[in-house]
Amino acid sequence: MKTTVIGVGLIGGCIAIDLRKSGLATKLVGVDQNPAHATKAVELGLVDETTTLEEAIADADIIITAIPVNAIRSVIIKVLERIKPRAVVIDTGSTKSQICKAIEGNAKRKQFVAAHPIAGTENSGPEAAFSGLFTQKTNIICEQEKSSAEALEVANRVFEVLGMRTIFMDPVEHDKHVAYVSHLSHVSAFLLGQTVLDIEKDEKNIFNLAGSGFASTVRLAKSSPEMWAPIFEQNAEYLSQALLEYIMHLQKFQYYLMKRDVKELHRIMTDANRIRKVLEGIEHKQQQNQLVAK
Amino acid sequence: MKTTVIGVGLIGGCIAIDLRKSGLATKLVGVDQNPAHATKAVELGLVDETTTLEEAIADADIIITAIPVNAIRSVIIKVLERIKPRAVVIDTGSTKSQICKAIEGNAKRKQFVAAHPIAGTENSGPEAAFSGLFTQKTNIICEQEKSSAEALEVANRVFEVLGMRTIFMDPVEHDKHVAYVSHLSHVSAFLLGQTVLDIEKDEKNIFNLAGSGFASTVRLAKSSPEMWAPIFEQNAEYLSQALLEYIMHLQKFQYYLMKRDVKELHRIMTDANRIRKVLEGIEHKQQQNQLVAK
Repeated sequence: MKTTVIGVGLIGGCIAIDLRKSGLATKLVGVDQNPAHATKAVELGLVDETTTLEEAIADADIIITAIPVNAIRSVIIKVLERIKPRAVVIDTGSTKSQICKAIEGNAKRKQFVAAHPIAGTENSGPEAAFSGLFTQKTNIICEQEKSSAEALEVANRVFEVLGMRTIFMDPVEHDKHVAYVSHLSHVSAFLLGQTVLDIEKDEKNIFNLAGSGFASTVRLAKSSPEMWAPIFEQNAEYLSQALLEYIMHLQKFQYYLMKRDVKELHRIMTDANRIRKVLEGIEHKQQQNQLVAK
Repeated sequence: MKTTVIGVGLIGGCIAIDLRKSGLATKLVGVDQNPAHATKAVELGLVDETTTLEEAIADADIIITAIPVNAIRSVIIKVLERIKPRAVVIDTGSTKSQICKAIEGNAKRKQFVAAHPIAGTENSGPEAAFSGLFTQKTNIICEQEKSSAEALEVANRVFEVLGMRTIFMDPVEHDKHVAYVSHLSHVSAFLLGQTVLDIEKDEKNIFNLAGSGFASTVRLAKSSPEMWAPIFEQNAEYLSQALLEYIMHLQKFQYYLMKRDVKELHRIMTDANRIRKVLEGIEHKQQQNQLVAK
């Protein structure tokens, strides 16, 4: 199938690699407003060619958008206006309420699938793309009842080829959940990084004293502000709620710390240890992923 | 050299494995107040035998303590009372001010070396021990001028054998720095775990939506409360200061989020991105470490 990927960064690039590998995409066209990314994507063989949005969608069977969430609305509306009658448009953005609302009642709503394949790394751009990013991970589709059966079938084939398991969710529920399990982790890492950089003006000291634990906790602070600032803005209500709860927990901890109430600190940490069970599940998935990749 | 390890958990166990491997420890005796850990440590071959503190130190050349920081003071004082004239006692705890203060003026202060080999995993107990934990990592020695040249030499051999690079630091400065680059990461992970567990009563949802980013950020929430509660208590002043600064950064971020001030959010994240340089240094060390281990 003729496939167009709009936004050939990390996500778009990883999708392109695996759609080509599987044979599902017979031709791959890229679109990127950053000329350097466009050139690089062709150079790396992620896509066969890059061109303008208009040209790239005129003849495409599948159009996948992998662009910052603040750009999705206008791009999707433009795309839907110009696509072939049976073409399918799949969005992969990390927030889903605003885009679903924005195209409610669009004449071609049935040709659109609102998805969120949950995967990523702290790196960005076409050079960061690799095969297997999505293997064994979860994809969310929102408002599946508003997509046609044909569009859903094509989307399912795409996500199956990527090795993902798809679940269905209401867009508002989706945004709320990701505020806690994804967006909050990013904010906590960004500001942990900021706090430590602030105090340790001489970065040499961080380097000397920081171990793998610090590296792991702060890793997401390397993420792209271009991608994340719009996500945070679109999910501001739920993220703010999550942040307030996190701050409240931190303040409570600090209160017991100042009181030297070791028993209470111990109790809080023991309670947080329950996350071990959840993490073992995620690690199990990752290990399976690595086995599959080998 | 006859070596006694007091506390045969993760840290004590990892030290024992590599001291034996190198031939530096000719006999290894373990002490652990947890009988299950003591039995396990012998079973796993971490130490040759376990016995009482009194017996274990009477004939030892090197005594290494790897126990919760709230237990160090009384153990070290007891150990110093009973050791051989040229024996060396090395502590490995994560806070250094209190122990240095506690044995100030002790008649055998010269035989003691206050160290902090910075390494660990989120796991604990003798089963968690493995060879190579310390390779390419940093060791801090505090108040080196209060240890005898002979004691320092023995300690240097130990940390060299473990593959560590030793730097020297004032104990108060040490505690302040680790509050930011180690203890704060642990608290942020514990409370991130707590916040998400709190909201997601149905843990299935976290499992579905959480990716590797969440797993990385929250990994330290698996750490042992038995080990960390006393560390936090001993370093309460500096950790509290670090926590307040972290909370202030989070609150500022939330303020700009509620104002939908994307430009300011973007600026904060771009600033935090500077951590990339620091992390690349840590990752570089880890890669060297893996190469050495292979």
